[in-house]
This record gives sequence, C-alpha cells and structure tokens, in this order.
Amino acid sequence: MDIHLTHYTFTKRFSENLTPKTFKFPFRVAWVDTDAAQVVHFSNYFKFFEKIEEEFYRHLGFNFNYFVERGMWLPRVEAFCQYKKPAKFNDLLEGELIVEELREKSVKYHFKIFNKETATLIAEGYVVAVTADKNTGRAVQIPKYFLEKLKPYCKCL
Amino acid sequence: MDIHLTHYTFTKRFSENLTPKTFKFPFRVAWVDTDAAQVVHFSNYFKFFEKIEEEFYRHLGFNFNYFVERGMWLPRVEAFCQYKKPAKFNDLLEGELIVEELREKSVKYHFKIFNKETATLIAEGYVVAVTADKNTGRAVQIPKYFLEKLKPYCKCL
Amino acid sequence: MDIHLTHYTFTKRFSENLTPKTFKFPFRVAWVDTDAAQVVHFSNYFKFFEKIEEEFYRHLGFNFNYFVERGMWLPRVEAFCQYKKPAKFNDLLEGELIVEELREKSVKYHFKIFNKETATLIAEGYVVAVTADKNTGRAVQIPKYFLEKLKPYCKCL
Amino acid sequence: MDIHLTHYTFTKRFSENLTPKTFKFPFRVAWVDTDAAQVVHFSNYFKFFEKIEEEFYRHLGFNFNYFVERGMWLPRVEAFCQYKKPAKFNDLLEGELIVEELREKSVKYHFKIFNKETATLIAEGYVVAVTADKNTGRAVQIPKYFLEKLKPYCKCL
Repeated sequence: MDIHLTHYTFTKRFSENLTPKTFKFPFRVAWVDTDAAQVVHFSNYFKFFEKIEEEFYRHLGFNFNYFVERGMWLPRVEAFCQYKKPAKFNDLLEGELIVEELREKSVKYHFKIFNKETATLIAEGYVVAVTADKNTGRAVQIPKYFLEKLKPYCKCL
Repeated sequence: MDIHLTHYTFTKRFSENLTPKTFKFPFRVAWVDTDAAQVVHFSNYFKFFEKIEEEFYRHLGFNFNYFVERGMWLPRVEAFCQYKKPAKFNDLLEGELIVEELREKSVKYHFKIFNKETATLIAEGYVVAVTADKNTGRAVQIPKYFLEKLKPYCKCL
Repeated sequence: MDIHLTHYTFTKRFSENLTPKTFKFPFRVAWVDTDAAQVVHFSNYFKFFEKIEEEFYRHLGFNFNYFVERGMWLPRVEAFCQYKKPAKFNDLLEGELIVEELREKSVKYHFKIFNKETATLIAEGYVVAVTADKNTGRAVQIPKYFLEKLKPYCKCL
Repeated sequence: MDIHLTHYTFTKRFSENLTPKTFKFPFRVAWVDTDAAQVVHFSNYFKFFEKIEEEFYRHLGFNFNYFVERGMWLPRVEAFCQYKKPAKFNDLLEGELIVEELREKSVKYHFKIFNKETATLIAEGYVVAVTADKNTGRAVQIPKYFLEKLKPYCKCL
C-alpha cells in the first residue's frame, strides 16, 4: 500500500492538439456546500472538480470502477484552485474540464467553474491523477482504453 | 458582496526572518475523512489545513470571529496541495504551519502534514488568504494586531 | 439568536389527503460520498435528504432564499434515518419526498431512497423543520405561500 | 456485499445497570462545520456522534480497525438526532456517550452534545450499529472483547 507518485516518470509528451474538446457539466450550489461566510467553502471546489471528472467519465462511458476492477486506482498527486469570485447557495454553476497534460502514467485535468447565469469565472484550477496499481502502490501506464478516451479533450495532443 | 482578490496589491515585502517559529497540531484521521480507496479523500487535506489554521489562531489568542466582529473576513484566493503518501483511518497525523509570505493585504500559509508515528511526510501545500471588507468585498490592510501575531512565524521577516 | 423549537406549538392538524403527490429526484453516488467501508457514509444520507428537499422547492418554484429574504429560516429540529442496504459509488439512486405532517409552524418530510436500477429501498427517514424568525429565534407560522405549495404533497391533508 | 441488518435478531436483554459510566469528549466547532445560516449544519451532528464513538473506542484501547482485521464492520442501521439549540463556529462543545442498549448483534449509543461553556444541551440522539460479517453482510454476535469493554457504559446491564 505504498502508493502515490514517487515512482512515476514524466517521459512521453505529445504534440499540440489544436482543437481539444471541452466537457461541460452544470450543477447547483447546495446549502451544505456553504459556510458561515454564506459562500461556498473553499474545500468544496475540489469536490466539484471531482464531480465534474466523474461526470466526464460517465459521459465517456465508464467510471472509477473501471480502474477498481483492474486492481488500479487514480490517486491524486496535486490539486490547485484559484478563487476568483464567491459562489452562493442556489447559484447555477457550470464546470468545464479539459485534459491539460497526458503523460505515460498520469493525467492533469484543468477545471474552470463559471456562474452559468452571469458567465462569470468563479474558480479555476487543476488536479493531477496517477494511474497506480492498488497493491504495489506503484504508478503504471495509463490503460490504452482510457488514453484513447482522453485524447480528444487534450490540448497537448 | 463582490469579494475576492481582484483589488489587492502585493507591495510591501519584508526582510528575511532567520528563525521563524513553526506551529504544530496533532490530530487523528476520522472514519468520515476516508473514501472507498480506504485513504483520506484528497479534498479533506484542505479541511485539515483550515483546522490547523484555526488552532494556530486559537494558540495566538483569537479566532475567525476577530475578523467577523470587525466587518472583515479572510477569503481564500489560492489553495494547493501535493500528496506524497496516503493517510488511513486512525493514523495520527501532525500538521505544521509557517507563514510563507506576509503582504499588505494577504497572508500565505505553508502546511506540512506528517504521519506522527513514522515521521513520514504525507502532504504539503499552501493557502493564500486575503483580509477583506465583508461589505465592499475589497481587500484591506492586514490589521496590526493580526500582523504582529503572525510575524514570529514568518520566514520572510 | 436563541433559535430552535422550544416555542412552537403543534395545534392545527389537517384531515387526511387521500392522494398525496410524491416528489422524485434521481442522483448518482459520488466518490466523496463513500468511506473506507466502500459504501456511502451514514451521515451523507442527511445531505441527500436535504438535496432532495432543495430540488423539491426548486420544482415548486422557489428555494431557501425565499425564507432568508423574509428574515426567516428553516432550522431542523429532528432528523432520523433507517439504513436498509448499503449504497456504493456510482449507484444511481432515486429520492422520494412526501410531506408527512404539516403543522402551524413546522413541516415533517418523509424520505425514501431507492436504488433506481434494482428498485431496492436503500434508506428511509424523516426531517422536521420549523419556520423560524432568524432574529428572535422563535418559531413562526408557516407562510401561506409555502403552505399552499406543500399541501398537494401532504398525506395529512 | 449484501450487508445491513435484515438478519439480526434482538434476543438477549440484560438487567439494569444502576451506575453506568459516561464517556465525555470535548471538541471545537470548525468553520467547515457551519453553513450559510451561520450555525452547524444538521448533518454534521452525525459526524460528531461518530467522532465521539471513535474517541470512545480509542479510550477503551482499540479502534474500528479491530473489526476490519476480523473481517467485520459496524454498519449503522439507525441514526436519530434532536436539535435543541444551534451551535456556532468556535463553540466549545462536549459530547457524552452512553451505551443505551446492548443486544446480541447490535449496540445502541446515546449521545448528548453540550455547549461546554454554558452547560446548555445543544443536541441529543442515538445511533444503532450492528456487528456484521463484511463478506456475507450478515449480522454476527458482538465479539466478547468488545462486549466486555462496552458493559461498564451500558445503562441496561
């Protein structure tokens, strides 16, 4: 169970993809997402990022269980968010996902979250996930099936 | 309620503080912190960071209400975390906080989270918070009281 | 801010409503909803209940802000859940809401959560919320607008 | 993975324990526990209950992993909370746990949460957990080790 990224290497880069697709997912701010400042708690944007990623996979025809069934998982090795404007209860937000980097054993998703009604950028950030073997904890090559699904959304291909 | 950092400027830097203090806070991983991968969910590290910040303020003799009572708050404008090793239920962790940057209207906290029993680094990251006026949403100068409290923990002073 | 139910009284009961409507809302189990037992954490069913309530109000044409704008809020005074079967990541669930009791100053929602694909009952419970004045903390009469919206979903009318 | 309580039976009751012990655990309300009503979100009391239960086990010299290592777990089959007074950020609370019922294959914990500074009762409730086999999903007898640990805290013995 010695997991996380120590052993993966960033080798293969890909040529530039001129017209990457963007995946979009709209959602409402729930009451439980807010805190006593009456805005969305900053930690919840990372839950939003993950929710967008989950819906992205669903849109592509699979889900995290694809990895679980292969004795793999997708541990996160980096997460970042820049907060531009506060979001409030009941705001209709829209998340956008693109694949910012696709390496041999990892993928970097870039997220933008907009207020869908005002078209204002609320927050922006990224998450780097590694394809890892659940038993050894070592990073392994991104499965071909997954790689092919991601390519159309990657600006780096 | 037009909050968040657009209007703050980073002007005053401070000279190097050779012996900054580190604030330490031990805590246990709760069951609810874990996810189906049987490790702490990546978003919860940001809750840990905030908990450490809260205990830091408590140690200094105040809390977030100090800001609320002055019509201020401390919106986060950036948050980052690098995950080194997974943490599991019941692990005894220890958070470390130092003040990485102290600017006119913002503070950047650097956090490290160790497994206290194995002394292994689990995660590391930072949070940038701005002192803002709750009504106008504009960044304002860090109150002198707060600034003086932070200085001994700042490596930049 | 002395809130919560001590001062409300349960006086007006209503006659039996033979054909109450049921509000239904489908949703997916997110990874963050799970815990190390690889099932949904028991506390999250209360978040699900609230999410269903929020979508119910949205369906009726308003939301919690209706109360906030009138200096009111809807504090919960009781919450209960019975867990029948575990739910797992990616399960497609469907929540059902009916109004179980409608009193002068409170409403009791009954929730059922089904696995939508297997039609299995996963969990069942209720939440009692009071219409309260945010300043005095006292329970107040349910606004007529709200009451009329709820009636078609109440089995007690 | 067909878990949860359908198969357990409530047979053995115990005689009255006149002087049961109470386990107490103090904790602070964190900012992330609050919602836009500037009080603790009602779902978080169930996290508090679980945290108190975890600290109770720790006090008794073990933790949830005791069950995991034996191929067991402790699924919750019922949870209830009555909210008396709101709790706010930074409030110092104290949780109290007693064992309300101890049956062959289940335990019912009763919780009270007080504001430690004002000695006001904030919330009160219970959780029923079943000792279950993780593989078959069936309820099994409470392990003797666990039972003996619980007895001094049970008002029913």
